[in-house]
Amino acid sequence: MSAPSDAVVPGPVLVIGCGLIGTSVALALRDRDVEVHLRDARPSNVELAVSVGAGTADPVDAPALVVVAVPPSAVVETVRAALTEFPGAVVTDVASVKGAICAEVTDPRFVGSHPMAGKERSGPMAASGLLFEGRAWAVVPSEDTDPAAIEVVERMAASFGAVTRRMDAASHDRAVALVSHVPHLVSALTAGLLTEAPGDDLLLAGQGLRDVIRIAGSDRGLWVDIIGSNARQVGDILDDLAVRLDELRAAVRSADGSVASHLDRGRAGVQRVPGKHGAHPTAVEGVFVSIDDTPGELSRLFADIGDAGVNIEDMRIDHELGRMVGIVEVVVRAGVADDLHTALIERGWAAFR
Amino acid sequence: MSAPSDAVVPGPVLVIGCGLIGTSVALALRDRDVEVHLRDARPSNVELAVSVGAGTADPVDAPALVVVAVPPSAVVETVRAALTEFPGAVVTDVASVKGAICAEVTDPRFVGSHPMAGKERSGPMAASGLLFEGRAWAVVPSEDTDPAAIEVVERMAASFGAVTRRMDAASHDRAVALVSHVPHLVSALTAGLLTEAPGDDLLLAGQGLRDVIRIAGSDRGLWVDIIGSNARQVGDILDDLAVRLDELRAAVRSADGSVASHLDRGRAGVQRVPGKHGAHPTAVEGVFVSIDDTPGELSRLFADIGDAGVNIEDMRIDHELGRMVGIVEVVVRAGVADDLHTALIERGWAAFR
Repeated sequence: MSAPSDAVVPGPVLVIGCGLIGTSVALALRDRDVEVHLRDARPSNVELAVSVGAGTADPVDAPALVVVAVPPSAVVETVRAALTEFPGAVVTDVASVKGAICAEVTDPRFVGSHPMAGKERSGPMAASGLLFEGRAWAVVPSEDTDPAAIEVVERMAASFGAVTRRMDAASHDRAVALVSHVPHLVSALTAGLLTEAPGDDLLLAGQGLRDVIRIAGSDRGLWVDIIGSNARQVGDILDDLAVRLDELRAAVRSADGSVASHLDRGRAGVQRVPGKHGAHPTAVEGVFVSIDDTPGELSRLFADIGDAGVNIEDMRIDHELGRMVGIVEVVVRAGVADDLHTALIERGWAAFR
Repeated sequence: MSAPSDAVVPGPVLVIGCGLIGTSVALALRDRDVEVHLRDARPSNVELAVSVGAGTADPVDAPALVVVAVPPSAVVETVRAALTEFPGAVVTDVASVKGAICAEVTDPRFVGSHPMAGKERSGPMAASGLLFEGRAWAVVPSEDTDPAAIEVVERMAASFGAVTRRMDAASHDRAVALVSHVPHLVSALTAGLLTEAPGDDLLLAGQGLRDVIRIAGSDRGLWVDIIGSNARQVGDILDDLAVRLDELRAAVRSADGSVASHLDRGRAGVQRVPGKHGAHPTAVEGVFVSIDDTPGELSRLFADIGDAGVNIEDMRIDHELGRMVGIVEVVVRAGVADDLHTALIERGWAAFR
């Protein structure tokens, strides 16, 4: 993963804000031998970040790059202060919403960033230099941004294994509202319906429900601030959703089959989302394998899948009530599902499609 | 998996309807050496079911049990006809909604069933005798049902590895509306929002979105009929959802932080859903491992997890854009996450929490 620092990211880098993202950026830079300085409004956060090897708390005179990774409400002020304090530095942020910062800061040395990475846990102890591997990283310049500044940020993100995508602020905020903020809220609403349900009813829950409500189970973290700062875009999409929900309610009550169009539209939407590694959505199929729920079984299963020469597109364990078995769903390209099924049966696995 | 047939399920059994569920029931019975006869309105379905070893197409005079596995619109008629044709048989169905059938058929020899099992693919070629392993199976008697009939069905389901749960029809239909039908529709609505989005926006999609919209990607199958036959319960819950969506829209626009209560309620709902093997929801954490996306890697990873003596509660591959890496999320009990992380690091894995 290492690359010579002067070929990738000019140092030193100052990271302001030692939470999950800031400390992860710092660790990724340290992994690449870049000199990193750390700041945080809370000294304890700096100490923790230093303790995990994210950099030094020593002051720095002239960083080449400043990464502002503070909570949304403090971003504009912190970016402006950094631009003033360090007249030679490129400054970027990592906030989940770009509208405000890009409207209020038009300095050519500032370019907005949004690494599409995150985890349920937050804080410096949850950080990792690997957090950005294979993730999207939105780069949001304004009209006045110096191209050299954009390049510094894009090269850094690419060195972390991220895939950068240049977008304007409004497009970015609409996109994240659609693919992240609204789904999170929908998940929370659906899960919220369960709080009053009899416990016995919930024993009928299956993998479908678990998938829909999974993200609602994460820590609230900064979500309230994030959604607050993208209120207009999120509100607009929720308005669309409300219209479609009304149509759906009418369709359900009419029992005239028009529910079908809602289901078809849902399927069409799923098929537009890129698949593995950003490739065009692939036709995939699941091969199911019933296993004893012990660690050795999984290893043997994957060894046999490997022997069969099949690449795994996705996988899940479907483990519900009762006996100590799991159903592993191995998702593979549709064209090889049959061969995999046969190969596993031949090796004695309880496989089915 | 085999058990002596006279100890578990009295034969012969007649399965009417050779789709996914009917053929899977037949296969599970054949796995236990029970004599199975098959019928279907389409001769080709019978042939296919016979060809996969699900039983015989020969007529039967006096089955001990009749399993009616026909589409929802034909269930009442088919159950009534079976009760008349076979005066000595217990009759059960497998329909996803119980209200109509249990109201219209009060013969003591009839007991409703609903195996909570299914797959994206349908039809006899998708069937498997393993389909019910570890799954819930709702048993829905009426007041007049003969206890002996209930016992026959419960023993059969248990022999398949299912966990039976006795419920009345109204409770069942409300429960499946809540944990299955409404989440499916919500998933479809959310995915439906994506059909008009610029393709570039969708490149920012992450695992959260993929989880929410996953079930919307399945074949429409019988969903229109199922939802249609549970229209009242589904409609009532969608009405609740519409009220909460209105509250949420107001909260988002107010930007006053009241979005927090929706997120908190969502989290509370998630925590009520039973975890692995029907156990109380367990505090779990994810350990993330960055791997090259090749089959051998997964096998080695699970071998090392096994060596560390850790049981896996859940797992996912998170593979997004760009480089050919995958992030495997291994979900384990919260108390062992740290140890697993350490053990994997020691074995050279790029693990993080």
